[in-house]
Amino acid sequence: MTQAQTANPTAAILIIGNEILSGRTQDANVQFIAQRLAALGIKLEEVRVVPDVPERIIRAVNELRASYKLLFTTGGIGPTHDDITSECIAAAFGVPWELNEETDREMKQVMGERYNAARQRMAMMPRGAAPIRNEASIAPGFSIANVYVMAGVPRIMQAMMKALEPVLPRGTPIQMRAVHGFGVVEGGIAAGLAAIQARYPELDLGSYPFKKDGVWGVALVAKGTDLPAIEAAIREATDLIAAQGAQPIQGEPAA
Amino acid sequence: MTQAQTANPTAAILIIGNEILSGRTQDANVQFIAQRLAALGIKLEEVRVVPDVPERIIRAVNELRASYKLLFTTGGIGPTHDDITSECIAAAFGVPWELNEETDREMKQVMGERYNAARQRMAMMPRGAAPIRNEASIAPGFSIANVYVMAGVPRIMQAMMKALEPVLPRGTPIQMRAVHGFGVVEGGIAAGLAAIQARYPELDLGSYPFKKDGVWGVALVAKGTDLPAIEAAIREATDLIAAQGAQPIQGEPAA
Repeated sequence: MTQAQTANPTAAILIIGNEILSGRTQDANVQFIAQRLAALGIKLEEVRVVPDVPERIIRAVNELRASYKLLFTTGGIGPTHDDITSECIAAAFGVPWELNEETDREMKQVMGERYNAARQRMAMMPRGAAPIRNEASIAPGFSIANVYVMAGVPRIMQAMMKALEPVLPRGTPIQMRAVHGFGVVEGGIAAGLAAIQARYPELDLGSYPFKKDGVWGVALVAKGTDLPAIEAAIREATDLIAAQGAQPIQGEPAA
Repeated sequence: MTQAQTANPTAAILIIGNEILSGRTQDANVQFIAQRLAALGIKLEEVRVVPDVPERIIRAVNELRASYKLLFTTGGIGPTHDDITSECIAAAFGVPWELNEETDREMKQVMGERYNAARQRMAMMPRGAAPIRNEASIAPGFSIANVYVMAGVPRIMQAMMKALEPVLPRGTPIQMRAVHGFGVVEGGIAAGLAAIQARYPELDLGSYPFKKDGVWGVALVAKGTDLPAIEAAIREATDLIAAQGAQPIQGEPAA
């Protein structure tokens, strides 16, 4: 790992998600957040999914906010009985859960008579939290200390990430390059690939089997903050694929 | 939560996955495993994604195998330098990492001259592990105590799950029913939904906004082990949607 990468801020994602654990829903938030964080030079180091159970949420929030520089949560901030993230964050911080006056005023103004008791729950926040206003939803997310609390609905979460990006700490952007080949198998290139990794210890060199149009292949991916090193490693990986008698194709196999 | 659900075996999934944390790959394994476990009456209680770093893998394995009855891992059991799951599991259990003679013999027999040093790594297992033979790959997964170690490539993982199912402990299958309506918003039904949840404390009643063909709606989902109760709760949820002036549609909105 390069010094730049080591110095990059670290982050975790906590998904509050019965619907993920039951298999009802395919998570669509991790990849989006991961890609945005990589672009900002923030190193995503852990993802957890926990059920909508207060003590589980509180414990995970406290473990993850202590272990990483930034914690992003998704899910559980709507108006229904199963939306308990906000009060759990207050409990995790040991602060009162109370009406955020500013948000209350803004939501009332926009929603008028539709602003009922259920909707007012979405204006409740841990004391000291700051709303995350966004383009997709009248009800905001919020941040408190190093914890960023976002919606679970992908398009609302994405709008909240967009609103957050200007205020997040940044590091050296993490870049990736890839080369792939059909008919290549990991067992055939493992030794050569380990040798390349040894020559570029500052990079993460990964090997990923894929199947496309019924044919197996392997994608080799170099990741890090030093683009010239990444490109040099990919040139060597390209030669490794060619040496197997396969045609090296730059980039990832299209999905 | 019903007694049956409480008595159901618990499980966690640990994904060893730099490629998930970097945003390169969309996880495709959690939903599959979650759905299979629900059908077997196994309660998935946590998912974690950690990087390909030995101490992180070892710590997560030890925390999760102690906290849940079953632990399923995916990823990191191939032949390349970044495949370190198997030796990490040995370290987590404090047992030697050694050649599984049976697997070594079988792989040699099938692969013949292609059975090189890199491939032989896939026959290495923690002492005491039992191979998970499967239809998709010559190299097996393995189980040790309550930990089931599977591949990250979805079709190989799926074959390993299929091979495992007959030997996993079972509980009361967890069932789900849903009803949805377009034009319904959570803020309008929150109070009514909370009242239904209060009448069916043994069920998990969830509310999930969706957008389809440009129109927002809400899906109401009842989950538990008692199918008559689930169906009764969904009838009440159907009435709740109708009372909003929307057309209740049984089931989930098609993706």
